[in-house]
Amino acid sequence: MPGSVGHVEPQRVVLFTEDDPLVLESGATLGPVEVQYETYGRLAADASNAVFVCHALTGDAHAAGHHGDAKRPGWWDTLIGPGKPLDTDSLFVICPNLLGGCQGTTGPSSVDPSTGKPYGLRFPHFTVADLVTVHRRLLAHLGIEKLHGAIGGSLGGMQVLQWALDHPSEIENGILVCASARLSAQNIAFSAVARASITGDEHFAGGDYYATGEKPRVGLSIARMMAHITYVSEESLRHKFGRDRIGEQPTFDIDFQVESYLEHQGQTFLDRFDANSYLYLTRVMDYFDPFADEAAAIARLGEVRTRFLVVSFDTDWRFPTAHSTEIARVLALAGCDVLQDEVASPWGHDSFLLEVPRYHELVAAQLAGSTSLVFLK
Amino acid sequence: MPGSVGHVEPQRVVLFTEDDPLVLESGATLGPVEVQYETYGRLAADASNAVFVCHALTGDAHAAGHHGDAKRPGWWDTLIGPGKPLDTDSLFVICPNLLGGCQGTTGPSSVDPSTGKPYGLRFPHFTVADLVTVHRRLLAHLGIEKLHGAIGGSLGGMQVLQWALDHPSEIENGILVCASARLSAQNIAFSAVARASITGDEHFAGGDYYATGEKPRVGLSIARMMAHITYVSEESLRHKFGRDRIGEQPTFDIDFQVESYLEHQGQTFLDRFDANSYLYLTRVMDYFDPFADEAAAIARLGEVRTRFLVVSFDTDWRFPTAHSTEIARVLALAGCDVLQDEVASPWGHDSFLLEVPRYHELVAAQLAGSTSLVFLK
Repeated sequence: MPGSVGHVEPQRVVLFTEDDPLVLESGATLGPVEVQYETYGRLAADASNAVFVCHALTGDAHAAGHHGDAKRPGWWDTLIGPGKPLDTDSLFVICPNLLGGCQGTTGPSSVDPSTGKPYGLRFPHFTVADLVTVHRRLLAHLGIEKLHGAIGGSLGGMQVLQWALDHPSEIENGILVCASARLSAQNIAFSAVARASITGDEHFAGGDYYATGEKPRVGLSIARMMAHITYVSEESLRHKFGRDRIGEQPTFDIDFQVESYLEHQGQTFLDRFDANSYLYLTRVMDYFDPFADEAAAIARLGEVRTRFLVVSFDTDWRFPTAHSTEIARVLALAGCDVLQDEVASPWGHDSFLLEVPRYHELVAAQLAGSTSLVFLK
Repeated sequence: MPGSVGHVEPQRVVLFTEDDPLVLESGATLGPVEVQYETYGRLAADASNAVFVCHALTGDAHAAGHHGDAKRPGWWDTLIGPGKPLDTDSLFVICPNLLGGCQGTTGPSSVDPSTGKPYGLRFPHFTVADLVTVHRRLLAHLGIEKLHGAIGGSLGGMQVLQWALDHPSEIENGILVCASARLSAQNIAFSAVARASITGDEHFAGGDYYATGEKPRVGLSIARMMAHITYVSEESLRHKFGRDRIGEQPTFDIDFQVESYLEHQGQTFLDRFDANSYLYLTRVMDYFDPFADEAAAIARLGEVRTRFLVVSFDTDWRFPTAHSTEIARVLALAGCDVLQDEVASPWGHDSFLLEVPRYHELVAAQLAGSTSLVFLK
């Protein structure tokens, strides 16, 4: 029976300092950079069993186990643990909070040593490649040179792709779940409205809201509610809520169950996420475009030794299968070892967080080197 | 060659008074109710050539011709005029601004005679049936008892459906374009976020913003931008804007062309629309559900003499063809004369506003009683 990794303690490490700063792709420097991370399982003596988890837009380092309350497990607890696809009986799993985040890793809410105040919008812009640079420094800190696997959903998958491109022999197995190599105009449009909602909030204060006692609660909750609609399928909203009503008479408050659900999504997000991090990380996604120069990308991919698994979900309309197909097409053109599969799941983009059997089988098989068995099923 | 109806003057009429108020479906009363409307073409001596245009969520009475600047024609000028599908050489076309609107018809921005101040959220809630009640009073005022046709897109089509249901022998031809008999949970979810954005705006003031010199500009523009994404297809955004950029360096302002376009949509909307009207009319759509009791609806439709044309567009993801199919299914079960067609068009929901040849052919043929010729093409 699959189990839990149990109680885990988050860890923190300063990976870059003011004297040895992170040099970003833009040329800007940033230091110190502290990273919060968690690990599950034990690193083998030869450090050959490490799997790196890259989280998505609003994730954090707490991917599995619990911090004291077993009823509140990490966000990927379905995937990580003894007997689970990322089997901690044999694998050593690492998950850090992203650069620019707000859950223990340096981001716009961190104190800028040059001013003694939170960075706010003075935090430098960064890229997916910069996220990978920080990930690699964490690996070095842990004494790991090569990964048995790297896995991520959505923005997480983008990091895996960038990592393989930039460091062609560091990842044995790269698993991209409902990822994209290039946001569409519609994807960017949704991000743009979310950002406009945050920056237009009366309490945004140009990003310097940390000391005011207020924050852009309305703007951030609207951003989250709208994004959430894109994370779930039309079908799942219909099944869960349909047109079920709460009251009889029309109001401009909460009349339908689906409104109550969405409002809850917006409100709970406020407790755990920083609006400026939302701005930075959505921009990172907008700009990600590693295949913009396809010929150059194919040339670089020719060196890549990673075996790729590219999974999408049939009801995902945030990053529909066409995004995964485009990734797999370019990888295959470059001669990479790539398996692509569209998995049936009613839950839309959020499926990557859920226990979808075939998806979990594929991930387990990829890490065990036995995907062909799953594909033949 | 199709032409323009040329210069038109909007008209206004008080259809209900305080002494003879509009009795709403809820039982509440409202008076006075003034309606702004326009007409195009000439009413035949026997009043047999009238076609009623029902506008959508953010439409107005100015459907065709111009008010002085021929470069700024009405919103359905492609459809209405000499030689056009609603041919004003032979038809008399009427288009009023909806009850609850903000373009000359009584709505939440109108003065409540009992207080001398704008209604704001004290305006009563109303339904699609109430919109039809006002439409019918306008017809009576114009001396018209029966319509050759009634046509509308989106919320406009809902009015046509309700009208035919409630008054089974008043409409000869009912034309529903990208309409719905029932918003989905996802549709309601988008509306809910739009409303939350408006009511959460610092300047909303519980709906009483008219006297403050401010209005919920941020909230209303966010609502419009988000809605606009749902009005256009993913494909059309990709073709128009793709990932084209404005600047080189990331900012939290306008970096991509699609962001500039969306911001323009949001800003121009502020000049012409009232936030409270947006709240009321979206709620009207949320609650519309004439087939909730399908057996009862079918029984009532058994009396309906209207010939229906139900058109959808293949790239419309706001009200996909499934919504039209559901309408046509129930109409057909009830034995109504109904033709349904999905028209190929790259422009999504907004296609109903655009010159899509087959759609225009179908509308013209329906009003001429010759749809079978078009269907056989």
